[in-house]
Amino acid sequence: MFLVRLVYASRKSPDFNESDIEQLLASARKHNLANHVTGLLCFNRKYFLQCLEGSRARVNATYHNILNDPRHNDIVMLDYREVDSRKFDAWSMGYMPESSLTTPLNLRYSGTPEFDPYDMSGESAYQMMLELGATVPVI
Amino acid sequence: MFLVRLVYASRKSPDFNESDIEQLLASARKHNLANHVTGLLCFNRKYFLQCLEGSRARVNATYHNILNDPRHNDIVMLDYREVDSRKFDAWSMGYMPESSLTTPLNLRYSGTPEFDPYDMSGESAYQMMLELGATVPVI
Amino acid sequence: MFLVRLVYASRKSPDFNESDIEQLLASARKHNLANHVTGLLCFNRKYFLQCLEGSRARVNATYHNILNDPRHNDIVMLDYREVDSRKFDAWSMGYMPESSLTTPLNLRYSGTPEFDPYDMSGESAYQMMLELGATVPVI
Amino acid sequence: MFLVRLVYASRKSPDFNESDIEQLLASARKHNLANHVTGLLCFNRKYFLQCLEGSRARVNATYHNILNDPRHNDIVMLDYREVDSRKFDAWSMGYMPESSLTTPLNLRYSGTPEFDPYDMSGESAYQMMLELGATVPVI
Amino acid sequence: MFLVRLVYASRKSPDFNESDIEQLLASARKHNLANHVTGLLCFNRKYFLQCLEGSRARVNATYHNILNDPRHNDIVMLDYREVDSRKFDAWSMGYMPESSLTTPLNLRYSGTPEFDPYDMSGESAYQMMLELGATVPVI
Amino acid sequence: MFLVRLVYASRKSPDFNESDIEQLLASARKHNLANHVTGLLCFNRKYFLQCLEGSRARVNATYHNILNDPRHNDIVMLDYREVDSRKFDAWSMGYMPESSLTTPLNLRYSGTPEFDPYDMSGESAYQMMLELGATVPVI
Amino acid sequence: MFLVRLVYASRKSPDFNESDIEQLLASARKHNLANHVTGLLCFNRKYFLQCLEGSRARVNATYHNILNDPRHNDIVMLDYREVDSRKFDAWSMGYMPESSLTTPLNLRYSGTPEFDPYDMSGESAYQMMLELGATVPVI
Amino acid sequence: MFLVRLVYASRKSPDFNESDIEQLLASARKHNLANHVTGLLCFNRKYFLQCLEGSRARVNATYHNILNDPRHNDIVMLDYREVDSRKFDAWSMGYMPESSLTTPLNLRYSGTPEFDPYDMSGESAYQMMLELGATVPVI
Amino acid sequence: MFLVRLVYASRKSPDFNESDIEQLLASARKHNLANHVTGLLCFNRKYFLQCLEGSRARVNATYHNILNDPRHNDIVMLDYREVDSRKFDAWSMGYMPESSLTTPLNLRYSGTPEFDPYDMSGESAYQMMLELGATVPVI
Amino acid sequence: MFLVRLVYASRKSPDFNESDIEQLLASARKHNLANHVTGLLCFNRKYFLQCLEGSRARVNATYHNILNDPRHNDIVMLDYREVDSRKFDAWSMGYMPESSLTTPLNLRYSGTPEFDPYDMSGESAYQMMLELGATVPVI
Ligand SMILES: Cc1cc2nc3c(=O)[nH]c(=O)nc-3n(C[C@H](O)[C@H](O)[C@H](O)COP(=O)(O)O)c2cc1C
Ligand SMILES: Cc1cc2nc3c(=O)[nH]c(=O)nc-3n(C[C@H](O)[C@H](O)[C@H](O)COP(=O)(O)O)c2cc1C
Ligand SMILES: Cc1cc2nc3c(=O)[nH]c(=O)nc-3n(C[C@H](O)[C@H](O)[C@H](O)COP(=O)(O)O)c2cc1C
Ligand SMILES: Cc1cc2nc3c(=O)[nH]c(=O)nc-3n(C[C@H](O)[C@H](O)[C@H](O)COP(=O)(O)O)c2cc1C
Ligand SMILES: Cc1cc2nc3c(=O)[nH]c(=O)nc-3n(C[C@H](O)[C@H](O)[C@H](O)COP(=O)(O)O)c2cc1C
Ligand SMILES: Cc1cc2nc3c(=O)[nH]c(=O)nc-3n(C[C@H](O)[C@H](O)[C@H](O)COP(=O)(O)O)c2cc1C
Ligand SMILES: Cc1cc2nc3c(=O)[nH]c(=O)nc-3n(C[C@H](O)[C@H](O)[C@H](O)COP(=O)(O)O)c2cc1C
Ligand SMILES: Cc1cc2nc3c(=O)[nH]c(=O)nc-3n(C[C@H](O)[C@H](O)[C@H](O)COP(=O)(O)O)c2cc1C
Ligand SMILES: Cc1cc2nc3c(=O)[nH]c(=O)nc-3n(C[C@H](O)[C@H](O)[C@H](O)COP(=O)(O)O)c2cc1C
Ligand SMILES: Cc1cc2nc3c(=O)[nH]c(=O)nc-3n(C[C@H](O)[C@H](O)[C@H](O)COP(=O)(O)O)c2cc1C
Repeated sequence: MFLVRLVYASRKSPDFNESDIEQLLASARKHNLANHVTGLLCFNRKYFLQCLEGSRARVNATYHNILNDPRHNDIVMLDYREVDSRKFDAWSMGYMPESSLTTPLNLRYSGTPEFDPYDMSGESAYQMMLELGATVPVI
Repeated sequence: MFLVRLVYASRKSPDFNESDIEQLLASARKHNLANHVTGLLCFNRKYFLQCLEGSRARVNATYHNILNDPRHNDIVMLDYREVDSRKFDAWSMGYMPESSLTTPLNLRYSGTPEFDPYDMSGESAYQMMLELGATVPVI
Repeated sequence: MFLVRLVYASRKSPDFNESDIEQLLASARKHNLANHVTGLLCFNRKYFLQCLEGSRARVNATYHNILNDPRHNDIVMLDYREVDSRKFDAWSMGYMPESSLTTPLNLRYSGTPEFDPYDMSGESAYQMMLELGATVPVI
Repeated sequence: MFLVRLVYASRKSPDFNESDIEQLLASARKHNLANHVTGLLCFNRKYFLQCLEGSRARVNATYHNILNDPRHNDIVMLDYREVDSRKFDAWSMGYMPESSLTTPLNLRYSGTPEFDPYDMSGESAYQMMLELGATVPVI
Repeated sequence: MFLVRLVYASRKSPDFNESDIEQLLASARKHNLANHVTGLLCFNRKYFLQCLEGSRARVNATYHNILNDPRHNDIVMLDYREVDSRKFDAWSMGYMPESSLTTPLNLRYSGTPEFDPYDMSGESAYQMMLELGATVPVI
Repeated sequence: MFLVRLVYASRKSPDFNESDIEQLLASARKHNLANHVTGLLCFNRKYFLQCLEGSRARVNATYHNILNDPRHNDIVMLDYREVDSRKFDAWSMGYMPESSLTTPLNLRYSGTPEFDPYDMSGESAYQMMLELGATVPVI
Repeated sequence: MFLVRLVYASRKSPDFNESDIEQLLASARKHNLANHVTGLLCFNRKYFLQCLEGSRARVNATYHNILNDPRHNDIVMLDYREVDSRKFDAWSMGYMPESSLTTPLNLRYSGTPEFDPYDMSGESAYQMMLELGATVPVI
Repeated sequence: MFLVRLVYASRKSPDFNESDIEQLLASARKHNLANHVTGLLCFNRKYFLQCLEGSRARVNATYHNILNDPRHNDIVMLDYREVDSRKFDAWSMGYMPESSLTTPLNLRYSGTPEFDPYDMSGESAYQMMLELGATVPVI
Repeated sequence: MFLVRLVYASRKSPDFNESDIEQLLASARKHNLANHVTGLLCFNRKYFLQCLEGSRARVNATYHNILNDPRHNDIVMLDYREVDSRKFDAWSMGYMPESSLTTPLNLRYSGTPEFDPYDMSGESAYQMMLELGATVPVI
Repeated sequence: MFLVRLVYASRKSPDFNESDIEQLLASARKHNLANHVTGLLCFNRKYFLQCLEGSRARVNATYHNILNDPRHNDIVMLDYREVDSRKFDAWSMGYMPESSLTTPLNLRYSGTPEFDPYDMSGESAYQMMLELGATVPVI
């Protein structure tokens, strides 16, 4: 089996509210646990930036589900690569709320002070994910 | 804009017949021309292997459409990368029929003499696409 | 003295006509000859893509002039680097008209079949310039 | 003499019980001591993952014995390379029981939370062995 | 969007006084905040050395404004590159007054003990900026 | 599936005669065709040197069979690696008889003028196989 | 003994005439033959650019003599390195007159169309010398 | 002068006794001091492994003497290279007795738990020498 | 301007006495301060080893003066390179007297226990200068 | 077995005459054939430069014999390395007489126009041997 890492950005649907995030996370974690997918989700009022790690088949199947989820759209992959090891093996889906996405952090990897993952190259998104992964608390 | 190259494999649906390929190609080429997407499609009785090149936004949108096309399933990305230049800029969608997918060629990049793209690493798929790209006639 | 190469893109002003290009080239070449600047200019109905080579001081001074020329706007540098040797030393300003900017060539280095230099990374622009430089006839 | 390192995976035979592991280890260590082979053995209820280090002739002879041992089957080499130095020189055969093969560790290098060495590339298996080697206590 | 870093040197105009620096900085910071540009400005009685980071479009537009500012002249770019992350994301425009530009620092990266950015290669200017960036206090 | 290449050396058993080689090859080719294994076999009066290519599972299963074949012994792996493509995809098992194993060729990659694969490093064996592969006629 | 290559530029003295070059070359060649120094001399109405190759001791001694020769001044070393082999071993001192120093050649490696070696980095000077060395006729 | 490092292995002669080592060392150190040779000698009941550092001429002359010394035989060079600096500059000849050549150390770099330098590649011998050099006490 | 570093060795003239060193240093520092040259001077009873850093023009002019100074002779350049930053920016001319040139230090970089810079490759001399530069006290 | 390549230089003894070379070669070739050693010998009136290839044990044993041969002295190894393949596998001992050691060839790799192998670094000697090996006729 090939181990892969996928990073994508998306835009929240108008009818998705911040209060819905807990439910989304709970369901994502349940599915990921069953599929041995791990990763990290960043979210602010507007955008999602997510990293998915796992076997090539499972990450692709999960991504297929995610692509068709009406709660977001304009989904764009930023990075996808075969890897030797995961970086987020401690979380079925770690979470990074808006409060963690500070101005310097956003500026560090993109053109804007607000969190805007579309504004990133694949390498920038990957580096930002690694920096976040080093600070996210184990749940 | 980021220029990207995406390679994926999929499995033909039972109700898709080889005779339907011309229609699929015609429609794919029409859409690709409009979206400035270029690439190559390999097809045998069982599987598809496709390479898509273009702007990150357009390639992702096209891939989203393709993912939800009922004519195939089990879609798995093999390779995705930002590139400096395209390799298939002469085809809105080049075509490689089963007759071109010879035994030595299939064996060269995978574990089986029949064309089976699931049996490939990202790098093998990418190398096979490049070798094919050098031989496909300009339409 | 440092030898540098600069590549930029710009948008033609509404009041600039294609018939004005000869005059622009003549004046550019006269100035470049005097300043030992060499390079290549691509032009279609909408955009300019230009490469300037020479000493750091002269290339910057020339670029300063160009930036303030009302015949174009939205000037964006795509690439700038210190180099050991020039690639366009045979032209005070080589010219690549729209007819040379074919669909495959444009697609090869950008997201669109029309010439759109804004749609390019620095490396893509640099590679396209090198490919063009190998084919432009010596005047 | 060439110094080599070999990593392989195998599946426990139905009639092998976890209680038999002590005997297997004792015999392996006796043989390895005599043959100057060193290494590490990971074992859970289902699979073995073993690393063998030593001279090319001895590691191959030992591997030949192991291949024909009825206590396991489906033996698949994951990695084999000439090395300048060993990493497990302190153990005639170090042991890593199931309790040490934690969920994050398994996920880190493969597609599943349970220990499944078949699910690994050669490089992943090699990296996991190195991480384990750094933590296994000297006996 | 491409993230870029630009470093340039310039010569203070005769009618610009050191006391005018606060006003320049205030206005630069206001514009940069609005354009998500970050960076560092070094200034002594004679020269400016400035680093600008941000999206390619905004950094170029800002640089265009700066080029035409009568408070300095002889503007020469020393370095320009696409980057994965910024180094000065904590400052809309950090400031390094003459007192920080010590003799050893100036000598370290150029041919003279006084601050003279024209006397630098692109790489020296970039390295000096990085060394300064590590010491400038967050405002 | 992982694609791998394995090179090993072995010593002919006393009761194996050169006239038996045709039968061995016929049976090997039949099995390899069924398992999509490709490769090259070198043989002289004393030794075998064989290269096997194919999926990781099939190459290992084939190697397991070969290891236990009484027609040879002292089997020692010289090289084993994951590869992106095969080099012997045109032969289910190419054959290199003693007459092709000339003195200069043997000397080039080992310490003796006679063919003695035990006298080779993994890299030498791999290079010799590649040189032979370029000259073996397609059957 | 260390083999080195030295490249320097200098300015012709006012009282040195072009007609004196033959005498200078004759004497240089005589000395170089005796010291096993080889190289190439470029000369136009204003400047010298010379490359010297040989043992470290002899090249330094020759350079010392040259430094004090009143026929030129402002001598500046552009490049100096230990090498494994010479490039000008066929000439005790090859000669490149002004007529060979064409506009494109000068522009290719410097900021000006006239030959001006001061206007070169060490690497540019070294590359220009190599290009010239490939074209200079053996005497 | 070229600075070189040489590592060789040899076999103690039957008539050389361990008690003779002090005399051998004293004489070696006297010669080495005179020749500015430095290094390290490992010795157990059977073998020598020695590293010699110094000018190319002196190391070769010393090695010539050593080759003809009847106290050992089967002398085989394992490694020889030009170096920029020595590693054993503090010892005219450091000494590593059998007690320091522990089982893990021997296994780490060779195929056997006893000290057997013939059983080493040049790189393994060089690495072992460096590890020993870091621990040998200054005399 | 190009920043360069030059390292050379020379032999003290018979009529130069150790007591003259203070005067030499004082004058060298005065000139270097004026020319923005920095560096390090090593001296023992016999030899000088000096490193000069600064702009290409000034380092060459200073070296020209030094070459013709009757207080030493046999001047041989060991290393010369364009650099991005200086290493001795804190000293107009640091000084390393004989007492600092210990036996291990000399042996470490050359073939002799006494300080003999002629006995060094360019890389050894450069490395020794860097090691010394890290220990010389700021004056 | 390790395959190695050794290059050394030596000085002809006074009592060795050029007419003795045939006998030396005949005897060397006989021994080398028996030991599977291959290589190249260069000889002029003064010096030998020889390359020996083969198994580590045999090359060392041969070198030991050569070291003690009274027909030459001052034997100095220039290069010694483990290799994957030989370069002189077609000659038990190829021969390069003085007439082949032309002035440009000698100058190319050393400080003198006459053949003087002592005047070479290990890398220069190795490169010269490779260049000669490409031209020596097969016997
Ligand atoms: C931003 C976002 C992130 C998501 N992340 C995951 C995820 O990591 N894993 C997952 O299985 N589903 C994820 N989902 C939910 C899927 O889109 C889908 O709802 C989920 O797979 C449930 O599928 P089901 O209803 O078929 O069980 C995510 C959805 C959104 C909008
Ligand atoms: C194997 C396969 C390859 C396809 N390739 C493309 C393609 O390259 N471009 C494209 O636009 N559609 C492609 N399609 C068709 C899309 O799935 C979809 O039918 C198409 O975008 C038409 O969309 P529309 O019906 O919304 O116009 C492909 C479908 C399949 C099954
Ligand atoms: C697309 C474009 C390319 C140009 N290229 C050059 C050039 O290569 N060199 C140059 O000196 N001027 C160039 N110019 C013209 C300058 O903008 C400016 O008109 C020119 O330097 C004349 O300046 P002057 O009127 O002060 O003499 C270019 C202008 C445009 C719009
Ligand atoms: C998972 C596993 C690991 C083993 N590891 C070793 C080992 O490291 N060394 C060894 O000699 N035998 C090892 N063996 C045992 C051999 O397969 C075999 O039983 C052993 O060499 C005893 O051989 P003998 O009965 O001929 O003495 C292992 C067996 C299994 C099932
Ligand atoms: C040395 C120097 C540095 C400057 N830096 C910036 C800067 O970082 N950002 C910026 O927007 N303007 C900067 N400016 C000011 C611009 O040149 C210009 O005055 C500013 O963009 C205000 O433009 P406006 O008058 O159109 O609002 C700088 C000016 C100088 C002389
Ligand atoms: C030198 C040698 C090379 C062999 N090569 C192959 C081979 O490439 N493929 C293979 O299936 N069997 C090969 N074999 C034969 C196997 O050892 C074994 O006989 C074969 O797999 C037949 O197995 P079976 O009797 O179970 O059908 C080889 C045997 C020898 C001695
Ligand atoms: C541009 C130039 C190049 C020279 N090149 C060499 C040279 O390659 N070799 C040399 O020995 N002298 C060369 N010379 C001449 C020396 O400067 C000096 O005149 C020469 O070594 C004669 O020295 P002598 O009068 O002591 O014999 C050159 C002089 C000049 C001006
Ligand atoms: C294992 C071994 C190591 C030796 N190491 C050195 C050495 O490092 N330096 C040295 O000069 N002689 C060394 N010798 C001794 C020389 O072989 C020789 O005896 C020595 O150079 C004394 O030579 P002499 O009798 O001509 O003075 C060594 C001998 C042996 C057996
Ligand atoms: C070993 C040595 C090192 C020297 N180092 C320097 C130096 O670093 N800078 C310098 O200007 N002069 C140095 N000098 C002195 C010059 O050779 C020369 O005397 C000095 O430039 C004074 O020149 P002036 O008499 O024309 O003023 C050095 C001399 C020697 C012998
Ligand atoms: C320059 C030179 C090169 C030699 N080359 C070889 C050689 O390649 N192989 C070899 O066996 N002997 C060579 N010899 C000869 C050996 O030194 C020695 O005479 C030879 O091994 C015969 O040994 P024997 O008398 O013990 O048979 C060479 C001798 C010299 C002087």
